[in-house]
Amino acid sequence: MSQEKSMEKIVAMAKNRGFVFPGSEVYGGLANTWDYGPLGVELKNNVKKAWWKKFIQQNPHNVGLDAAILMNPKTWEASGHVGGFSDPLMDCKECKSRFRADKIIEDVLQKKADETPVDGWAPEKMKSFIEENQVSCPECGAKNFTDIREFNLMFKTFQGVTENSSTQIYLRPETAQGIFVNFKNVQRSSRKKIPFGIGQVGKAFRNEITPGNFTFRTREFEQMELEFFCKPGTDIEWFHYWSDFCKNWLLNLGLKEESIRMREHGQDELSHYSNATTDIEFRFPFGWGELWGIADRTDFDLKQHRDHSGTDFNYLDPATNEKYIPYCIEPSVGVDRVALAFLVDAYEEEAISEKDSRVVLRLHPALSPFKAAVLPLTKKLSEEAEKLFSELSKEYMIDYDEAGSIGKRYRRHDEIGTPFCITVDFDTLEDKAVTIRHRDSMDQERVSIDKLKTYLAEKLDF
Amino acid sequence: MSQEKSMEKIVAMAKNRGFVFPGSEVYGGLANTWDYGPLGVELKNNVKKAWWKKFIQQNPHNVGLDAAILMNPKTWEASGHVGGFSDPLMDCKECKSRFRADKIIEDVLQKKADETPVDGWAPEKMKSFIEENQVSCPECGAKNFTDIREFNLMFKTFQGVTENSSTQIYLRPETAQGIFVNFKNVQRSSRKKIPFGIGQVGKAFRNEITPGNFTFRTREFEQMELEFFCKPGTDIEWFHYWSDFCKNWLLNLGLKEESIRMREHGQDELSHYSNATTDIEFRFPFGWGELWGIADRTDFDLKQHRDHSGTDFNYLDPATNEKYIPYCIEPSVGVDRVALAFLVDAYEEEAISEKDSRVVLRLHPALSPFKAAVLPLTKKLSEEAEKLFSELSKEYMIDYDEAGSIGKRYRRHDEIGTPFCITVDFDTLEDKAVTIRHRDSMDQERVSIDKLKTYLAEKLDF
Repeated sequence: MSQEKSMEKIVAMAKNRGFVFPGSEVYGGLANTWDYGPLGVELKNNVKKAWWKKFIQQNPHNVGLDAAILMNPKTWEASGHVGGFSDPLMDCKECKSRFRADKIIEDVLQKKADETPVDGWAPEKMKSFIEENQVSCPECGAKNFTDIREFNLMFKTFQGVTENSSTQIYLRPETAQGIFVNFKNVQRSSRKKIPFGIGQVGKAFRNEITPGNFTFRTREFEQMELEFFCKPGTDIEWFHYWSDFCKNWLLNLGLKEESIRMREHGQDELSHYSNATTDIEFRFPFGWGELWGIADRTDFDLKQHRDHSGTDFNYLDPATNEKYIPYCIEPSVGVDRVALAFLVDAYEEEAISEKDSRVVLRLHPALSPFKAAVLPLTKKLSEEAEKLFSELSKEYMIDYDEAGSIGKRYRRHDEIGTPFCITVDFDTLEDKAVTIRHRDSMDQERVSIDKLKTYLAEKLDF
Repeated sequence: MSQEKSMEKIVAMAKNRGFVFPGSEVYGGLANTWDYGPLGVELKNNVKKAWWKKFIQQNPHNVGLDAAILMNPKTWEASGHVGGFSDPLMDCKECKSRFRADKIIEDVLQKKADETPVDGWAPEKMKSFIEENQVSCPECGAKNFTDIREFNLMFKTFQGVTENSSTQIYLRPETAQGIFVNFKNVQRSSRKKIPFGIGQVGKAFRNEITPGNFTFRTREFEQMELEFFCKPGTDIEWFHYWSDFCKNWLLNLGLKEESIRMREHGQDELSHYSNATTDIEFRFPFGWGELWGIADRTDFDLKQHRDHSGTDFNYLDPATNEKYIPYCIEPSVGVDRVALAFLVDAYEEEAISEKDSRVVLRLHPALSPFKAAVLPLTKKLSEEAEKLFSELSKEYMIDYDEAGSIGKRYRRHDEIGTPFCITVDFDTLEDKAVTIRHRDSMDQERVSIDKLKTYLAEKLDF
């Protein structure tokens, strides 16, 4: 029944309905930046709230944090980002186009159906591969590349008046390190015992060479990261716990089981310090893409910070009197990516009859920008409807819409994912009840006004 | 009764209890950066939620937005930030200390009880003033300053691989411009009619020469801005409407009336494009400081963007068929500042008896990090108490605390502003009720478990 989803359709719908606009559009944009419109900011906030609710609020182990984007640059020496967070770049000497050498090699390998991973190849190894395989420029076909050089992906800036190496700082490329450096402050002030986790939602920045695929890969993005600290030896158990937890979070919020897959990293793909890593991938119109990375990072990060800062990151177990540096499980997900996945998964073009069809956004009510729309049947009922709007909007984001026929208003709200349209009609004045029309089934039911808040609360639960 | 509040006490309490930690502390910090701990992130999120609720969710005029931090640099040419957003700096040639010339002049004028504003003085004027008045270096006393030069406060970075003027971009120094450039996209997609507003919460960055006073002035900070668009001629009326609205928001959330004052800008202090500006100031321990600026910016911003982008920012009034560029009222407040104001205002050291005293944080329940704490009287009641915790935490941030005597636990929660301590005792097993102990009055009352959620919901309303 439903037609093929394309990114073009999603991007156009997102712009027209106010989910996502091109960034700085009146000035011709800025690379792949995007601004969330009135509906997009609600969707994104709902995603963040849903994460906070399940990972922090309801979880007795975990607490939250909000560390600064600007950190002491020694942080990034310890984390390895100053030394190793780079892309291998080369230029075509003929047409001056610039490429990521690893991506070009991956394309070549893919055509050969060769699954050798390119991660971790030294520039020299890539260069010999390109020469031996006579790889040509994807733009002009020449075989005349420059040497490969490493380009660090951190955005740099200067703090204070002078610009030199002592004032150079970075925009954080991930939120995780803000958690690690605060491990002791958080543990002490919250009096948490191992196992416990620290979660954080915030912006991060990566100077990607090739951002793209709408909001999937952008230079500025938002992360939701949990660092869960546990006793060494219990890490694999917690790794599985959090992998399942993340998957269930997605499914409980309505993502279709067939739209995602778990991809375990093989031994050759694992970082040297990682005991296990799994990606949750989503099937985007442009292919499978990573949503969530769940990694067992052992005690790598805390030890790095110990070595670079001289801080003792040992934890003294009050039950056993053992002293150890905790192991850490990191489930890390991009807000923009997961919001895009929910949007894509929910989008449907549905044939209603031979002549009629509709676009419907089947978002979980907890994620819908508007939880309900209050619609007076005619403008004569505005007063009653406005009263209801102002009562319900104390609790929820509600739209008030009195323009056009009821059928037209229903369709408008189908397209933006509003799960319930609440119509105030002339009977309402008598029976103190309203008609609720359901987005997904298009069924209608009569519900009394004094039960509406409870009704909505139940539907929003997940 | 209550002792003097000092910033030292607030900063120490904030660190000890997990509200605010020094940023990057294990690496010796980074200038005046701060990380919000487990309680601080809840307080800050509650401030943002309370703003969104009243300014966006419940307000039928307004919609939200979340624009990118990285914008096309032409934005900052149009807004005047590239040309004029700078501090006048000079160095002492003897001791090499660096100063803001305007601040030094203000200090001199203040000693003379002269209220001449320094805003808008050209560097030459400042230099002559300093020479004529024989101003000496505050550090070493010499009278040998360099020339005054303008230092732009925007953080610069480079996007992409090459670093030159064509790839130079800025971290936004305010969120407002993200709203102006999106005016047409938002108006079209949301079908809003004038008057309407667009609100946004997000990070901004200013390379301040002298950050300080804890989280009051930081280089990285968060703003909550509304740009309210109205018909020219109605702007002063809306200016007063929003000034009152902002003040009431603060008072409804428990800020003491005597802790704030409204300061109207005089004609000589107003920006050339502004019809009126009022600051809401709060009495910090270090003096009165600006919390909220409410400005009538006329059509200045949209006209600037029209002139720089060639976009037509006219609005066609569907009722009257008139075409005009709307006027704009901007209430702009810093999240970090207002959270600090709530913290300072709520902090109290209270004598209970001749021998006993307590620290109590009288935050409005809507702002309290924990809405309630569930306390089993003894560990034998853990199971019952955990059940209650897990039920209540579906809706609210709740703490579970079974360590120490009940009295000690009460005091711990007084200090972090938890308004209600819910004690599960042996009677609870029989009567399905709990004892609620109130933070402010220390009174106790018995409430049945099935009424707890409604009980809390009522107290959280504002």
